[in-house]
Amino acid sequence: MTWDATRRDVLALPLAAAAAALIAPAIARAADDPLPSWNDSRSRTAILDFVGRVTKEGGPDFVPLDDRIAVFDNDGTLWSEQPVYFQVFFALARVKQLYPEHPEWENLEPFKSAISGDLKSLAATGEKGVLKLVMASHAGMTTEEFAQIVVDWITTARHPRFNRLFTELVYQPMLEVLNLLRANGFKTYIVSGGGIEFMRPWTEKIYGIPPEQVIGSSIKTRFEMKDGKPVLQRLPEIDFIDDGLGKPVGIYKFIGRRPIFAAGNSDGDLQMLQWVTGGKGARFGMIVHHTDEKREWAYDKQSSVGKLDKALDAATGARWAVADMKWDWRKIYPFSS
Amino acid sequence: MTWDATRRDVLALPLAAAAAALIAPAIARAADDPLPSWNDSRSRTAILDFVGRVTKEGGPDFVPLDDRIAVFDNDGTLWSEQPVYFQVFFALARVKQLYPEHPEWENLEPFKSAISGDLKSLAATGEKGVLKLVMASHAGMTTEEFAQIVVDWITTARHPRFNRLFTELVYQPMLEVLNLLRANGFKTYIVSGGGIEFMRPWTEKIYGIPPEQVIGSSIKTRFEMKDGKPVLQRLPEIDFIDDGLGKPVGIYKFIGRRPIFAAGNSDGDLQMLQWVTGGKGARFGMIVHHTDEKREWAYDKQSSVGKLDKALDAATGARWAVADMKWDWRKIYPFSS
Repeated sequence: MTWDATRRDVLALPLAAAAAALIAPAIARAADDPLPSWNDSRSRTAILDFVGRVTKEGGPDFVPLDDRIAVFDNDGTLWSEQPVYFQVFFALARVKQLYPEHPEWENLEPFKSAISGDLKSLAATGEKGVLKLVMASHAGMTTEEFAQIVVDWITTARHPRFNRLFTELVYQPMLEVLNLLRANGFKTYIVSGGGIEFMRPWTEKIYGIPPEQVIGSSIKTRFEMKDGKPVLQRLPEIDFIDDGLGKPVGIYKFIGRRPIFAAGNSDGDLQMLQWVTGGKGARFGMIVHHTDEKREWAYDKQSSVGKLDKALDAATGARWAVADMKWDWRKIYPFSS
Repeated sequence: MTWDATRRDVLALPLAAAAAALIAPAIARAADDPLPSWNDSRSRTAILDFVGRVTKEGGPDFVPLDDRIAVFDNDGTLWSEQPVYFQVFFALARVKQLYPEHPEWENLEPFKSAISGDLKSLAATGEKGVLKLVMASHAGMTTEEFAQIVVDWITTARHPRFNRLFTELVYQPMLEVLNLLRANGFKTYIVSGGGIEFMRPWTEKIYGIPPEQVIGSSIKTRFEMKDGKPVLQRLPEIDFIDDGLGKPVGIYKFIGRRPIFAAGNSDGDLQMLQWVTGGKGARFGMIVHHTDEKREWAYDKQSSVGKLDKALDAATGARWAVADMKWDWRKIYPFSS
């Protein structure tokens, strides 16, 4: 059973939703309101209702502690992903850093476009070009060296639009959902198409999600003795793509059971949402819909980054909650007023 | 730093060890002794000493909670592995079960030997034969169906020598080590060359280790809609071999950090032990040495199952604790007197 369908119609009209958003601040909230950055909305109600039901001992939807597993996409679900995935900014910075050792990159694509920061020409190099860029920037060092490279970048690099650290561009309402779930005994995981080792060095600090609860795409590593020390060397070879059809596969590989809660924002999350909500017992599926071009970005079916088309169409039939960023979220980022 | 080397010489002679074992029961143990099935031995002292040091706040070897990660091999380290890995018994039983649907197996190796239970002829079919057996018995169903098949077998099949459930053949002293570590804030993992989904359905009940803390070898799976339901179908294709050089790779892939405690019993654990104990700060490596042919089995350098050769030679230089089953363990299995 998913969230109560009868509640779906109450605020079905955009006008009603807008009215609710305006009225919302006036509605009394408990001092310990677990979702203060959410307007009173169907999605907020659905989340609270679900958590209440699965934690109610003796209730028909009660779920034992061990099975309270929640999975979250990262790009576009927990933090922003425009104008390109933030990991692309990282790859570009890394290539620029390595350029002095690679003079041959001056006239060689995709490096030429990467070094000049020409995202359009870079995109034109296609999947093959991007793969070359990823391998040049993400492989060829030990796992410990790579983690340090990520930390050095993530603690200093800034987003061009907001001039903020990328880790400041996380969604306050989603941080509240993570905390709400954990306060109710859930184990929270990230399941991202992005690089697993690009996320692990900072997810605990930013999201409260430790490295072992991060699932993502990966390149291969090899055990080696380096200067007499055992290390894992990162190789320029794809190991696993944790996107689309790969997400349920990645989840089962790492966790060994089917989660009961999944949140995503794009078609890359479709199979994860289907698989998670297709299990027995109480299940919750949720889509973050980017509808706020003023405070964040507005995009869905036509977007090249974070395209949301089939998953949005599937949401109604599957009874997934759709969080409308513009109407449902009082606040986008922790630093927003 | 590993465990204090000066303690290694105190009981260096087998005679002294034997004497200690005889005296041991007379030595007073606290009522809440965390390792009651261990004789007073170098390995027992080393374990207690290590746990004491890494949990002593303000001490030079203190390790924060998050980094207290311990990894254990399974076959031969947490449960027995003779006369063959227990998963082989499972594969044989499964092939026998499927035989009626496969009359062509009657004269086809490795199935012929598997069905007749001729382990010697089966071994003669080599790696290729065993792989065929694994694929025939472990693939071709959904992940949920496979978990049920494992549960059905593990709760009924019995070991030929002891006429006990295979899960009764776990080592009581190692269960105590698992509990001791967890009581001191450690997260305990299995890192096995065996099949990950063969272990996950029962490790929580038997070892207190949940599915998401089990790492092992795997075959590929594919997301499919089956009768309108989303499932993961198990494919006859190797995904990852979690043995030898693969163990550090598997650990980092799943956990994203280097554990500080590792226990194994064979050369398949060598690189895991090297990598874990090769990190900075307090580290602990441990080898279970099978020396008790009366109560369990005695084997090491010449064994085809669980061969312990290079890792045993490396133990002294690397200062890994070696638990001598015959002398160090008062009790082998929970049911032993």
